[in-house]
Amino acid sequence: MTFTAVELIELKRDGKPLPADGIEWLISSYTEGSVPDYQMSAMAMAILFNGMNAGELAVWTRSMLESGDVMDFSDISARKVDKHSTGGVGDKISIPLAPLVAACGAAVPMMSGRGLGHTGGTLDKLESIPGFVTGLDPERFREILTEHGLVLAGQSGTLVPADQKLYALRDTSGTVASIPLIASSIMSKKLAEGLDGLLLDVKTGAGALMKELERSRELARTMVGIGESYDVNTIAFITSMEQPLGTEVGNANEIAESIDVLRGQGPDDVTELTMTFAEAMLILGGVDRGRERLEEAIGSGAALEKFIEVTIAHGGDPSVIEDPSLLAKAANEAVIAARYDGYVTRCDALTIGSATVRIGAGRATKDDVIDPGVGVSVLAKLGDRVSVGDPLAKVRYSDESRWAAQRDLLASAWKISDEQVDSPRLVIERIDHTAF
Amino acid sequence: MTFTAVELIELKRDGKPLPADGIEWLISSYTEGSVPDYQMSAMAMAILFNGMNAGELAVWTRSMLESGDVMDFSDISARKVDKHSTGGVGDKISIPLAPLVAACGAAVPMMSGRGLGHTGGTLDKLESIPGFVTGLDPERFREILTEHGLVLAGQSGTLVPADQKLYALRDTSGTVASIPLIASSIMSKKLAEGLDGLLLDVKTGAGALMKELERSRELARTMVGIGESYDVNTIAFITSMEQPLGTEVGNANEIAESIDVLRGQGPDDVTELTMTFAEAMLILGGVDRGRERLEEAIGSGAALEKFIEVTIAHGGDPSVIEDPSLLAKAANEAVIAARYDGYVTRCDALTIGSATVRIGAGRATKDDVIDPGVGVSVLAKLGDRVSVGDPLAKVRYSDESRWAAQRDLLASAWKISDEQVDSPRLVIERIDHTAF
Repeated sequence: MTFTAVELIELKRDGKPLPADGIEWLISSYTEGSVPDYQMSAMAMAILFNGMNAGELAVWTRSMLESGDVMDFSDISARKVDKHSTGGVGDKISIPLAPLVAACGAAVPMMSGRGLGHTGGTLDKLESIPGFVTGLDPERFREILTEHGLVLAGQSGTLVPADQKLYALRDTSGTVASIPLIASSIMSKKLAEGLDGLLLDVKTGAGALMKELERSRELARTMVGIGESYDVNTIAFITSMEQPLGTEVGNANEIAESIDVLRGQGPDDVTELTMTFAEAMLILGGVDRGRERLEEAIGSGAALEKFIEVTIAHGGDPSVIEDPSLLAKAANEAVIAARYDGYVTRCDALTIGSATVRIGAGRATKDDVIDPGVGVSVLAKLGDRVSVGDPLAKVRYSDESRWAAQRDLLASAWKISDEQVDSPRLVIERIDHTAF
Repeated sequence: MTFTAVELIELKRDGKPLPADGIEWLISSYTEGSVPDYQMSAMAMAILFNGMNAGELAVWTRSMLESGDVMDFSDISARKVDKHSTGGVGDKISIPLAPLVAACGAAVPMMSGRGLGHTGGTLDKLESIPGFVTGLDPERFREILTEHGLVLAGQSGTLVPADQKLYALRDTSGTVASIPLIASSIMSKKLAEGLDGLLLDVKTGAGALMKELERSRELARTMVGIGESYDVNTIAFITSMEQPLGTEVGNANEIAESIDVLRGQGPDDVTELTMTFAEAMLILGGVDRGRERLEEAIGSGAALEKFIEVTIAHGGDPSVIEDPSLLAKAANEAVIAARYDGYVTRCDALTIGSATVRIGAGRATKDDVIDPGVGVSVLAKLGDRVSVGDPLAKVRYSDESRWAAQRDLLASAWKISDEQVDSPRLVIERIDHTAF
């Protein structure tokens, strides 16, 4: 059958499902440029309003996926598992998680992203290890994975070109906030990695892309559904992103905290999430004795050793992992102190993330250069008891004027009250194929 | 205040009204090209879903209007009135209406369009008068209007460039069917003509742009609201477009039927609509003794004389008006005959319009050339009693294969049943400022 873009847009606009061959035609024509941006942005807006059903979404995702190369690691006998987070503040989980899981025998071909908005990015954090190269060609990606069972890189330009184009278009046409478009964008990229299993961390709350639990749940279910339709076992966790994860927000300082986790000395919340996700990834990876294996890998130093090993493979300097005090640290230090006695009832991830990015740990435009030594240590978290003068946060900064411009914003992230609140539950829900 | 297109799109997407200065910025930036098509098409789709309130619509229309030249005929003492129809089949009303109203003392600076889809266009019909030029520069437009109180032309390229751009974009992005966008497109063009009064004919039914009465009513009310917000007295009629208007569908044959009306010998429905609209336009034009004046203008030949006069001013050959048998007539004739005895219960305007266009009376693409002598005479209309063999339609065509390809489609427009139906009421509703 032949289609015109207008006919397909009108179908979706009128709330009707798109035919499978229509979706295939649209995505391939858009990728090659014969369907122009102005038709695709109108389609994206119509999808934002009228959604896509599971069948449409499976075809849409497959068409995106097939717009470029698809990796094939079937020659690697270990099961391939990866993890994706929708993004949070202080969310360094991938960094201890990937070596830990690899040390236990699953293969982890991890493709990560850069900081976006108020959230940090795994690639930016890894690049605070001197020499660490995250941009790999497909051959080198495969070599490191084959040799070490682990690779930590950015997405290759040859994977999912349709998504690269559509993502940029959505960003500039007000069509980001569509669950089917978010889900198909994430899943097409992950499915192109040739995985056997995928763990999804869908953040919810003030500091997350999805601020409402119901929307987070819908996104998680949608992505698990897509994964299952491709026979990639997919488990999603919905986790809290009201306050930053762990103590450190930034880049080099998040690497240091990740090393603490691999040494068994990380903050409780980061450790808990890492272990929960690692256990699920070992199940997806078909590895026996999950929890026990994980504890051994940490206790024996094997997990840390795997991180050192992969760092060397990526050209990074392993000495900063053995001695994290060698990591970059901005020259100046300031403290945000409590102005009242009481309990912390607000420790807002969005505010802390935005301020940290603007002090120099992230980018306002894509050409900005990140200062890896800039960061915030979050010293008082929800439910903590503080007294006047206690430090709520310690800030490391390079540029005095950038810090001065963010000081009030950063301080506004905390609220101290007489009434104690509980720390929010970290893992809110687990969704897998049994949800369908 | 400063805006980004994305912020404005997101506001509309989330169901919030657009700020006035945001609309002004958006339309002027789009017209000059700094807001790209892919943002405007996403905005158009968001408007299609979430609408615009009366305040937004007034600003949107004014911003479109102010994107180009606005005509000023304040030096012409007569009140300036025009008429716009949303388009129908056999809808030649403008052609007898304009000279009739001008003959009674109102000034009619009429700007019309070309055939679109299954509907004919006033300009195409006028051009079946040999020599008649509809493309006038603004000076010549003004001269003819000043001298004759009437001008019948296409829209100048310098009026409402924003609409010219947005109209083409909507047509190719599935965003035509939005009442606020249709209303602001029509009204910005009409308001740029420097009018005192405007009559709108909003067609409803199978052969109309708006097929449902409720949507037609909403469009009519929206346009009257915009007109009133500009102090241009606006009256809208909602009229039936289930079956073609009058007998003739085509171009030259519609001119001949228009001349019949000006001679007092037109078909009842075309005459009724022409007189109803003329009376309303004389009220808008502040002319006394409306109905009486109109009957005098027809009886005395003054209305026909005005048509001849303006035809000469446009370079047209007046002899075809004096003797319509000189108008173009395609060489071949065919008849669609009734195959049953009974009453006509269907005489579908959309089908007849589409077939007539494809036989050669309209364009499939904008580069097609119209054959002015091609046309269909609709000889049996809703409620008529017919016997087997009676002609339902007479077709004049040039190209045998085009006719052969449309014969079945055209014949399918009629249905003959035992049960008699009433002819649909022609004027369904009248909406003016008292509706607000």
